[in-house]
Amino acid sequence: MNKFEEKTINTEVIYKGKIVQLQIDSVTLPDGQTSKRELIKHPGAVAVIALTDEGKIVFVEQYRKALEKSILEIPAGKLEEGEKPEITALRELEEETGYTTDQLKLITSFYTSPGFADELVHLYFTDRVKPLEKAVDMDEDEFVEVRELTLEEAEQLSVEQRIHDAKTAYALLYLKLREENR
Amino acid sequence: MNKFEEKTINTEVIYKGKIVQLQIDSVTLPDGQTSKRELIKHPGAVAVIALTDEGKIVFVEQYRKALEKSILEIPAGKLEEGEKPEITALRELEEETGYTTDQLKLITSFYTSPGFADELVHLYFTDRVKPLEKAVDMDEDEFVEVRELTLEEAEQLSVEQRIHDAKTAYALLYLKLREENR
Repeated sequence: MNKFEEKTINTEVIYKGKIVQLQIDSVTLPDGQTSKRELIKHPGAVAVIALTDEGKIVFVEQYRKALEKSILEIPAGKLEEGEKPEITALRELEEETGYTTDQLKLITSFYTSPGFADELVHLYFTDRVKPLEKAVDMDEDEFVEVRELTLEEAEQLSVEQRIHDAKTAYALLYLKLREENR
Repeated sequence: MNKFEEKTINTEVIYKGKIVQLQIDSVTLPDGQTSKRELIKHPGAVAVIALTDEGKIVFVEQYRKALEKSILEIPAGKLEEGEKPEITALRELEEETGYTTDQLKLITSFYTSPGFADELVHLYFTDRVKPLEKAVDMDEDEFVEVRELTLEEAEQLSVEQRIHDAKTAYALLYLKLREENR
């Protein structure tokens, strides 16, 4: 199972932030040599593919400081400690889009950047959303705008690199396959 | 274009490593408040969907210290400074799999974790590979094993979470769509 395992000799925590922790692991390689690994620890995240009654996909437009630009993504957010991913998914859907649902289906989970980070994204699907009667407060440092688009419109924005992240790219392929199999 | 832009007040570089740089940006939010953003700078990466003459997908099995386990991924690697992604893609394909190709098609590019990192992955496709006559040296701290699998076999390994990362999950959906459209 763990072919080429790298044994930890030492872990040096460089920074413990609110979202990420950076640590340098000294490791023994399979050939006995030693090396260092720069590792980001992350609590994990959820994302939600949400379709409205008209079959439109719910996106949020958001400025991403890491990219120095705003892009359109499916609603997403990081796990709070001890929180079940499905609870996070519902909370983020409600906070970011103003929609709620009584049906979230887990599609898959994937590591976003296994080369240096342990962030695991749990991806959910719902085609049963309804508007919340009362908006839920977002995190105070979060600013998003909701956009509802057809798959075709979203694919065009993907070509234009306004949609430009892994989970949302995956979501568009998922919806394309779903459409072709109906 | 840059809705909800966050202006940088100050950048504090916490760590400059071989692969990642961690910095804390103090920013002004759209409402005038200030906040901090934990950001990972990464050189970017490439990944290659490579199909053999028999239509099998070329994977590499590799231990990922961040996950503390080995998983199967499509061949991938990070960009060297000033290197064109297509050159990196060919190099990583040759180093990791022992195959070469004269035809790499860019499928798409996506940010893996826009919430905290600027890593951009360029994803290539080829169904024209041939074995190298002479193996190319890999990085000295890299140990991988090549596995060639049908799409069905890969989908099963995805269910078993032996295939478990975003770019490879995307690749499997891409190949599934491709198969259905033939």
